[in-house]
Amino acid sequence: MAKVKVGVAGYGVIGLRLATGVALQEDMELVGVADVAPTLSVRGLVEAGMPYRFYNAMPENEEKLKAAGVPISGSLEDLVEQCDVMLDATNAGVGAKNKELYARMGKKAVFQGGEKNSVADVFFHGYANYEKGLGQQFLKLTSCNTTGLIRAVDALDRAVGVEKVAITIIRRVADPGDYHRGLTNALQMDKAPSHQAVDLMTIMPHVDATGILVHTPVTHGHIITVVASTRKKIDKANTLEILGAHPRIRTVKIEDGFLGNASLFRYARDMGKLRGDLYEIALWDESIVNSGNDIMFAINIPQESVVIPENMDAIRAAMQMQLTRDEGTAMTNRYLGIK
Amino acid sequence: MAKVKVGVAGYGVIGLRLATGVALQEDMELVGVADVAPTLSVRGLVEAGMPYRFYNAMPENEEKLKAAGVPISGSLEDLVEQCDVMLDATNAGVGAKNKELYARMGKKAVFQGGEKNSVADVFFHGYANYEKGLGQQFLKLTSCNTTGLIRAVDALDRAVGVEKVAITIIRRVADPGDYHRGLTNALQMDKAPSHQAVDLMTIMPHVDATGILVHTPVTHGHIITVVASTRKKIDKANTLEILGAHPRIRTVKIEDGFLGNASLFRYARDMGKLRGDLYEIALWDESIVNSGNDIMFAINIPQESVVIPENMDAIRAAMQMQLTRDEGTAMTNRYLGIK
Amino acid sequence: MAKVKVGVAGYGVIGLRLATGVALQEDMELVGVADVAPTLSVRGLVEAGMPYRFYNAMPENEEKLKAAGVPISGSLEDLVEQCDVMLDATNAGVGAKNKELYARMGKKAVFQGGEKNSVADVFFHGYANYEKGLGQQFLKLTSCNTTGLIRAVDALDRAVGVEKVAITIIRRVADPGDYHRGLTNALQMDKAPSHQAVDLMTIMPHVDATGILVHTPVTHGHIITVVASTRKKIDKANTLEILGAHPRIRTVKIEDGFLGNASLFRYARDMGKLRGDLYEIALWDESIVNSGNDIMFAINIPQESVVIPENMDAIRAAMQMQLTRDEGTAMTNRYLGIK
Amino acid sequence: MAKVKVGVAGYGVIGLRLATGVALQEDMELVGVADVAPTLSVRGLVEAGMPYRFYNAMPENEEKLKAAGVPISGSLEDLVEQCDVMLDATNAGVGAKNKELYARMGKKAVFQGGEKNSVADVFFHGYANYEKGLGQQFLKLTSCNTTGLIRAVDALDRAVGVEKVAITIIRRVADPGDYHRGLTNALQMDKAPSHQAVDLMTIMPHVDATGILVHTPVTHGHIITVVASTRKKIDKANTLEILGAHPRIRTVKIEDGFLGNASLFRYARDMGKLRGDLYEIALWDESIVNSGNDIMFAINIPQESVVIPENMDAIRAAMQMQLTRDEGTAMTNRYLGIK
Repeated sequence: MAKVKVGVAGYGVIGLRLATGVALQEDMELVGVADVAPTLSVRGLVEAGMPYRFYNAMPENEEKLKAAGVPISGSLEDLVEQCDVMLDATNAGVGAKNKELYARMGKKAVFQGGEKNSVADVFFHGYANYEKGLGQQFLKLTSCNTTGLIRAVDALDRAVGVEKVAITIIRRVADPGDYHRGLTNALQMDKAPSHQAVDLMTIMPHVDATGILVHTPVTHGHIITVVASTRKKIDKANTLEILGAHPRIRTVKIEDGFLGNASLFRYARDMGKLRGDLYEIALWDESIVNSGNDIMFAINIPQESVVIPENMDAIRAAMQMQLTRDEGTAMTNRYLGIK
Repeated sequence: MAKVKVGVAGYGVIGLRLATGVALQEDMELVGVADVAPTLSVRGLVEAGMPYRFYNAMPENEEKLKAAGVPISGSLEDLVEQCDVMLDATNAGVGAKNKELYARMGKKAVFQGGEKNSVADVFFHGYANYEKGLGQQFLKLTSCNTTGLIRAVDALDRAVGVEKVAITIIRRVADPGDYHRGLTNALQMDKAPSHQAVDLMTIMPHVDATGILVHTPVTHGHIITVVASTRKKIDKANTLEILGAHPRIRTVKIEDGFLGNASLFRYARDMGKLRGDLYEIALWDESIVNSGNDIMFAINIPQESVVIPENMDAIRAAMQMQLTRDEGTAMTNRYLGIK
Repeated sequence: MAKVKVGVAGYGVIGLRLATGVALQEDMELVGVADVAPTLSVRGLVEAGMPYRFYNAMPENEEKLKAAGVPISGSLEDLVEQCDVMLDATNAGVGAKNKELYARMGKKAVFQGGEKNSVADVFFHGYANYEKGLGQQFLKLTSCNTTGLIRAVDALDRAVGVEKVAITIIRRVADPGDYHRGLTNALQMDKAPSHQAVDLMTIMPHVDATGILVHTPVTHGHIITVVASTRKKIDKANTLEILGAHPRIRTVKIEDGFLGNASLFRYARDMGKLRGDLYEIALWDESIVNSGNDIMFAINIPQESVVIPENMDAIRAAMQMQLTRDEGTAMTNRYLGIK
Repeated sequence: MAKVKVGVAGYGVIGLRLATGVALQEDMELVGVADVAPTLSVRGLVEAGMPYRFYNAMPENEEKLKAAGVPISGSLEDLVEQCDVMLDATNAGVGAKNKELYARMGKKAVFQGGEKNSVADVFFHGYANYEKGLGQQFLKLTSCNTTGLIRAVDALDRAVGVEKVAITIIRRVADPGDYHRGLTNALQMDKAPSHQAVDLMTIMPHVDATGILVHTPVTHGHIITVVASTRKKIDKANTLEILGAHPRIRTVKIEDGFLGNASLFRYARDMGKLRGDLYEIALWDESIVNSGNDIMFAINIPQESVVIPENMDAIRAAMQMQLTRDEGTAMTNRYLGIK
């Protein structure tokens, strides 16, 4: 069977990881990546010997790109032309503009969480609503926090039913190497309810969700505490069993040295994981407690990499490569090395 | 009526604020403060012209203290001798040792949250159980987070009944100027349930409480999110009415510029509050949301100063200066300038 | 003698401290302060009971200010009208616009370091070139780092002659409570030479200065290391003697507990200094070393308050209140409580 | 020719990178690594499928290691027995104890910067004194800052002669994932002169060096500013030419997006460098300025990986694999992919 041809627009924190993710899928072919300027990420592509072809999405920057030694394989249109589906990881708002191009050329596209929901035909999550994405032209993924959160809530919901969740998002405010945003010695409040809770309800409309988000001056992963009211009361052992069985949830223990978000980053780097990335969220064993009949626990969201698997799922659904959630996510997991 | 004579043991972050607090109570007299070495705080006392008398709690450090120019008014015993009640803000564990001295000299004492509960006859909170402290010899205060949290939960409980609370503590990891502890670019998990939830249940045994605590690398105030199951369902307006009426809770709005914990610190400094200290916790207006029948909100805990009022309450209860919660806390509030 | 009437435009981090500074000068009268919106600082003025009169510099914001309960004493023009001299601490660039108003009304004005040099008749520093400011209409102050640095370099220069300095500025990136700028887990380079070195040469043209500035994610004070080539070689003892004699330089020791920039902030807060502000820079005793014939040392710059004294000096020079550097700075020091 | 057999004692931040470094040297064989407990790094080794054999250096922890699923290939003695040379990256002080074992078994060993100089026969740097290490039994490497700094100073010295250097070390206070040390919103002073300057003089005794070290709350690389007095005056172009020619110095530009230490980490991760590690220090083009006849510039030190190449050099010198500095460092560079 011919491989599905995939392009990536926007070679930033997410885009470059999407490229890696696609390159690992044996039933997909990464045609190339597009960006608009010789950013650090693009310069790294050059120093690494151009493992992927680069397309210039901003013709007026051709001289700058050439001055930086970037070999240009064509325009964004040239890239789209060769692809079956585009993963659009451009800055928020640009995707909506690119959509016109994708539509004109009759291609499918997957947008990231920063775009408005209206950009897409379906707001997608690999585990929660895979089937809704089947054959769709335009899909929008949930953002990093929502993607990880839904993995856990969906798993609980399928096992014992979830009525409502109240979440507290302890958000990392920037990625490693970010200089365009930051926070110094301050926690920052967002107005409640957090958009992640609202987005969860869009994907899982039968669950009542709300939450408060607080930004913190760190870079290696969000932590979310979840208070979930389940239809059937569960305890810590049940929770470990249910969430521990999820391929994209990793259970860790404080007593084993997983002291916080930075431990997971260190662990992945030590192991030699590419870029120190983990695709799984982590559930802390020692965080799980009952609050009356509710269950409360804390999860870690590796913001740079967590959405990669669900993006692969989205391609599989859109291109109807696998027709069921179980088959689609299993194939993604297999190629990404998720056990 | 003769003023109640108060001494402070331990002139650190809490101790020096206790001294200020006592000095403001017109029906108390601050006899002096004791510490063991020429710390920065003690050196500051010297540069400020010795507004309080200093007693040396570690005879072998007399030379060091004199070398630093600290006028010594006597030993710890000399201080205790002159007092009716001691506020013990020494390092955790030292209070238990000092207790022997207080007991031997027949004095009352108030210990801080770092000591074990067994050090005291009653685990005290000015609003939640004032009457339990009446006439007691040894009282232990709740820690900063618990003190602030109980203010809110007790107020809700008295108004509409609280069945259970699930809290997430986003903890500042150090105080401004701390070099002996710190966290750099990391969030750190504590094993659940947090001791603050457990302590709340000790003070308010009819409430079921649990929670997760996450340390964050900031210095200006903890933020706690609370999910409270109330006996009578309340909404945002009710919550604002109930908590807004509490003298030691300040309602603030993100849209007014109170963006996070650091805004409150800045606001207090700008105003000229001594040391930038606020005695009130803050409730964010825009954080209040319903989670089904539960109410969820976020509060800010100024860790350095929040326990000062309840310490004054403790003296009032122990010395039976006022015989009811309302009278005792009102007198404290009046002298501390809390409206 | 009639007091000099002073107004402050811009009630932010610097402006509110200028107001405090003027209020302490017994030979000056603070007419009032002006700003454009109900910022946190302005709200604090209201809660503090309006110790100063407030003037509205942006008529279209009158409703917002009134809604926040701010009593308005008039417009910016009304304030300027009543003053002999304005301290302009508005955002960079606004001062140049306000200058037109000051010029039209025939008033003197002192601008802060953020404005362009061309805004003023003289680029001023109380210790380095007081006499140049005598009787001038428009003066511009040096920025916080430059102000503190020049204190030290000027003192060395007067004592033993300074040929050149090479500085490394370890810059705090935001003030406590800043949410509009920040840096998270990153050091950031500026292009060399730093403007502070260039500015120093403008004020002290006989000194060759250069330097590198690195931003760091902290809020409580810059640290500058200085490598100074003096005409007469000096050692640590000489340096302590020369710099230690400067009223606006405070010598501190690591071994006394002054471990870094945050220790100085804590020390000032502990002492009860208003807002935890120090007017002096600090010189670390244990940082002083010879580099061949050069002398190297580290100083701490309290960025929020360091420029206040030199602003008072500027008023004295502009208004010819004292005709010499020694008399002018001495009077400022006396009223600010600098020994 | 038979490969040189190498073992690594201490599988922490440095040890695991040493293992990777040795594994890349085609003329060396990594026999295995030793540690004392199932740390995160050791757990990562297990999850990664045991690419290296593990030896247990603390027999009493065998149960804990087994419980964590760590396959144990033997004791530390078993590892040493099979090796020609040990790289000892244990905690400071442990190396001195291990030395007895190495001596008893007649093996060579290379110690890291944390050990005392007296542990070794020679204090070694691949570029500055390769020949001194030839055939020696015990070598001690310089610490991360000193290693990077000497690369630059040695290169200048060989080109134009260096008389003295005055350095300011802006030190990262912890590594990513460190929870046992940290600093929150504070800069911290060390007593001058910094040990790095002293160490430089031990390796390069003809250079006068001094410096000041300031700790900063970041994790991705130290920055050092250097003021160097050269025998022959050089300007920016000369400096770029001399330092740019060094294989282990990478020249970067702020205008290309290398804004600070975190940019280099991001760049390396983006490129897919293992663990985001760079072996080269970076020199900022826009930091280079003359200070009179001196040259001043800023370099970045990737603290986790910078010493790996010089450790490989040390093995080459100790084992006399190459007899000259040029041949030894060239072979290391070739196998590590340093151009």
